[in-house]
Amino acid sequence: MIHKDKTTGARAGILHTPHGDFNTPIFMPVGTQATVKSVSPDELIELGAGIILSNTYHLFLRPGADLVEEAGGLHKFMHWNRGILTESGGFQVFSLGELRKITEEGVTFRSHIDGSKKFLSPEISIDVQMKLGSDIAMAFDECIPYPADYDYAKQSTERTHRWAERSLKAETRSDQGVFGIVQGGMFEDLREYSAKTLTEMNFAGYAIGGLSVGEPKDLMYNMLEVSTKYLPEDKARYLMGVGTPDHLIEGVARGVDMFDCVFPTRVARNGMAMVWTTTSPTARLVMKNAQFTHDHDVLEEDCQCYACRNGYTRAYIRHLIRANEIFGLRLLTLHNLYFLQNFMKKMRETILNDEFTSFANDFYNY
Amino acid sequence: MIHKDKTTGARAGILHTPHGDFNTPIFMPVGTQATVKSVSPDELIELGAGIILSNTYHLFLRPGADLVEEAGGLHKFMHWNRGILTESGGFQVFSLGELRKITEEGVTFRSHIDGSKKFLSPEISIDVQMKLGSDIAMAFDECIPYPADYDYAKQSTERTHRWAERSLKAETRSDQGVFGIVQGGMFEDLREYSAKTLTEMNFAGYAIGGLSVGEPKDLMYNMLEVSTKYLPEDKARYLMGVGTPDHLIEGVARGVDMFDCVFPTRVARNGMAMVWTTTSPTARLVMKNAQFTHDHDVLEEDCQCYACRNGYTRAYIRHLIRANEIFGLRLLTLHNLYFLQNFMKKMRETILNDEFTSFANDFYNY
Repeated sequence: MIHKDKTTGARAGILHTPHGDFNTPIFMPVGTQATVKSVSPDELIELGAGIILSNTYHLFLRPGADLVEEAGGLHKFMHWNRGILTESGGFQVFSLGELRKITEEGVTFRSHIDGSKKFLSPEISIDVQMKLGSDIAMAFDECIPYPADYDYAKQSTERTHRWAERSLKAETRSDQGVFGIVQGGMFEDLREYSAKTLTEMNFAGYAIGGLSVGEPKDLMYNMLEVSTKYLPEDKARYLMGVGTPDHLIEGVARGVDMFDCVFPTRVARNGMAMVWTTTSPTARLVMKNAQFTHDHDVLEEDCQCYACRNGYTRAYIRHLIRANEIFGLRLLTLHNLYFLQNFMKKMRETILNDEFTSFANDFYNY
Repeated sequence: MIHKDKTTGARAGILHTPHGDFNTPIFMPVGTQATVKSVSPDELIELGAGIILSNTYHLFLRPGADLVEEAGGLHKFMHWNRGILTESGGFQVFSLGELRKITEEGVTFRSHIDGSKKFLSPEISIDVQMKLGSDIAMAFDECIPYPADYDYAKQSTERTHRWAERSLKAETRSDQGVFGIVQGGMFEDLREYSAKTLTEMNFAGYAIGGLSVGEPKDLMYNMLEVSTKYLPEDKARYLMGVGTPDHLIEGVARGVDMFDCVFPTRVARNGMAMVWTTTSPTARLVMKNAQFTHDHDVLEEDCQCYACRNGYTRAYIRHLIRANEIFGLRLLTLHNLYFLQNFMKKMRETILNDEFTSFANDFYNY
């Protein structure tokens, strides 16, 4: 951390990894299957991405960790020389619902690809992540569903803590940091308990998990606040799976340094462009809409993304999206990812200039 | 034409257009809907593409010629500053089979998008192509199905000639050349008759249509030979819809200068890479095959395409294709398009060095 905002919890810092130092707060594009959908590593660098997220669950199933290791690790396999954070597979496995079974040892589940029986545990997850060779590995955890009762949340959180210890113990690479994941459901005391317990284990950094899972916004922000309150100031904090501009601001205001989300890439594939407009900074242009038929302006004035900088118009992108052309979603993906990189950069600048509060206020009173 | 091979009909030349001069023989990537599937104009330039083909039928239906004209023409709309050839819509309309009705005036058909009734005639086709502002417009013609009897082929060819005259008459842009299309079915005398009739009309160039529609190879090559035999030496000759390496060589050997085909982009989308191998120069690698699982070499040694130059491996591309990741088909598209550009370049060099025959022999005896 190099600077803290005077009124909020917002902080600007630098994250050190074996593949470079990255300014925080940072947004990490998601490259689930060893590729950020539709774009090249060159394009990611060009739009300012520093660290990307990839998924242990998916790579464990296909192509398999051994193959990636044989290829020289994930960086080499996918041609990405900057940072990679791998999540542990916990979230994906728990998303499978009825298809998985949890024991103290780990989770048995059915592959979404071929239905075959698979098993993940803290040890296996860390082993996979070591083979992938990510810069940051995540501890194996359970993402508690919402709603969940207190007893379930407590038992699950305690198991997540035991799994966190096993994850730490399984890690043997010196060039890979392991992050613990704060759980605790939607209960303040469990969140506090989880943050404190994990802090004692001395992880390289800390993630806040189990949020943005269907709960009301205020509850999410409250749980986030309680979670970060008890985490050490000198370690990175990562709010998992969050990436809409409002959540990013609220997260940063509560002391979060890192975010990831499929949001910018997914809305691009759904034909939407993220833009600041004169009415709302979280506006999205639905490119199929008839209003863009004759709109020969770029997606966003003064935007320096590949699409806008080169003058690709709304009318052209609308045509591509309507015609199901890949180049359309590629242009939108490049724009949306740039939009968020730029958004984070602006936030960082305002933190460094002690103007974060006015930035946040401007955002909400746009 | 700047050089002619001594033994075959192969010729090397330069095609002049308002958007630049291009070396022939040339292969034109297909950008059906104002985009070459999955790749950017920058990438097309980088891989050496000089002129692309776009489809009047598709752009007529969506987004419409008026919109493209309003946007400043097709070059500006899609950000392509090199050559564009538009076909006339004839081939697509006739491919609709039962959905269209031919009269002397033109063709009534149902849109494949919304089923609405549409009409194309020589005048409308040329009007659309003028609005698109392509460098080369094609005369409106009928592509005769195979097989077809002599009487039908003769009547159709004569109508195509009348439509060719109307197409020429409809053209008013001085910056757009119109090519006539030789038809005649699979009948030598009709091919000769068609080539001679169109030559008298003095088109800017000539296409050979109605081939590669299901007929045996030898018949196709024979019809091609008869067609080019009676075309003027000093005008460009374009064999429509042909793009496999063997057809390209046979076409060049019979005096063809220009080719287009969806082949390289389509096989890429089907997960295949075009390569010269030690067993066959027309080999394609089916990337899903298990043999590439542990293959950490590039698609093709010494290839200077984006994928190979940057070291993307067969194992990685196989993973992307199996995982249905867009970046996989994008890498294959870039490779395949580069492969063909390079293939044409090699052919041109051998023509200029009077080595075309040995190049063709090497190809078949590889």
